[in-house]
Amino acid sequence: MEREHYSRQFDTELNEIREKLLEMGGKVELMINDALKALVDRNSALAEKVIAFDHQINRLEMEIDERCLEVLARRQPAARDLRFITLAMKIVTDLERIGDQCRNIGKRSIELNELPPLKPYIDLPRMALHASIMVKEALNAFVAGDDQLALKVCRDDQFVDDLNEQIQRELLTFMMADPTAIARAMKINHVAKCVERIADHATNVAEMVIFMIKGKDIRHTAL
Amino acid sequence: MEREHYSRQFDTELNEIREKLLEMGGKVELMINDALKALVDRNSALAEKVIAFDHQINRLEMEIDERCLEVLARRQPAARDLRFITLAMKIVTDLERIGDQCRNIGKRSIELNELPPLKPYIDLPRMALHASIMVKEALNAFVAGDDQLALKVCRDDQFVDDLNEQIQRELLTFMMADPTAIARAMKINHVAKCVERIADHATNVAEMVIFMIKGKDIRHTAL
Repeated sequence: MEREHYSRQFDTELNEIREKLLEMGGKVELMINDALKALVDRNSALAEKVIAFDHQINRLEMEIDERCLEVLARRQPAARDLRFITLAMKIVTDLERIGDQCRNIGKRSIELNELPPLKPYIDLPRMALHASIMVKEALNAFVAGDDQLALKVCRDDQFVDDLNEQIQRELLTFMMADPTAIARAMKINHVAKCVERIADHATNVAEMVIFMIKGKDIRHTAL
Repeated sequence: MEREHYSRQFDTELNEIREKLLEMGGKVELMINDALKALVDRNSALAEKVIAFDHQINRLEMEIDERCLEVLARRQPAARDLRFITLAMKIVTDLERIGDQCRNIGKRSIELNELPPLKPYIDLPRMALHASIMVKEALNAFVAGDDQLALKVCRDDQFVDDLNEQIQRELLTFMMADPTAIARAMKINHVAKCVERIADHATNVAEMVIFMIKGKDIRHTAL
């Protein structure tokens, strides 16, 4: 009876970690959307808000990390639960670094807002939306232990990479045609690289989830 | 007596993790140096070697991860040792991603080698050397529990960022002066960004080490 009570409490603790992680993921998604909105709408106040919000993400990372350590120390879980908790600790690090990328986009947006617009943003918001969906799905794959969804995230990374290449090619033509466009194009290129990194973090999470579930390393096999 | 034996065995296991991590770090440093050598010497064969070597880094990551999980499950360590092992698991992820960046530099080098040289590389090798020292020192700070060394790594990141900015400014002047240089300059810019990311990974490791030792988050305080 007591054992059952103990195990139920443990389940509650694992669920708390799951929920906290999804909460952090939700905030990170919002941050991606706001960072891109600040860029597209040339809204420097929103960009400042994104930059300031990064503190909250860092706090959440530490909170979840501490919570995981506590549960590890007290419950001393084995096998699957141990893998789940240690992976959660790796995933919060990826989420925190996505927050860093959003902060970088915020900084570049403020700089870009001080210069005349180069062109309307079309592919960048699409790329960012796609990346934020990848983040959401990678986390869902983790909490649900869904390797098929994780595999989808890994495959989707190609689309983000393709969009990034398309953006780079387009920026190149702007730079070739007009030397005064080069500095701005380099900043936009930096933003595209930040979004690419966000998608990379989501892919990293998805790869680790697949490894947790299947015990199979997919990083160097064709999908 | 038996307890002492048990604890000595545990120390041996922790030392094994320490040594494996340093071994992986040494291989990653070599990879950084080779990636830059391939670029500077326009040696595509060496670049191919760097790209192929990334598999070994991935294997090492999995090995160390598995070893840490085993020790966690068997020894159920508390407090300091628990923090040490879970941090080791985070650090191998950073090392693995440094390997990914070296692979990216290798790919860009091969592309650049097919085009006429833009200019001699001066700041990029300095930047990469500095980044690889940061990786080495961050790992040393971790295994020795040396927060002062970790703090040095965090401070050194500024130098890499400054070099990166200098490189960007120089590339900008090349691009403004000659549109046919733009495509090559963009590739060199990408390599600089890869090196910057390597230094960021080293800084991330150093920050986590300081947090492990001092329980203090330095990520958003002035150093």
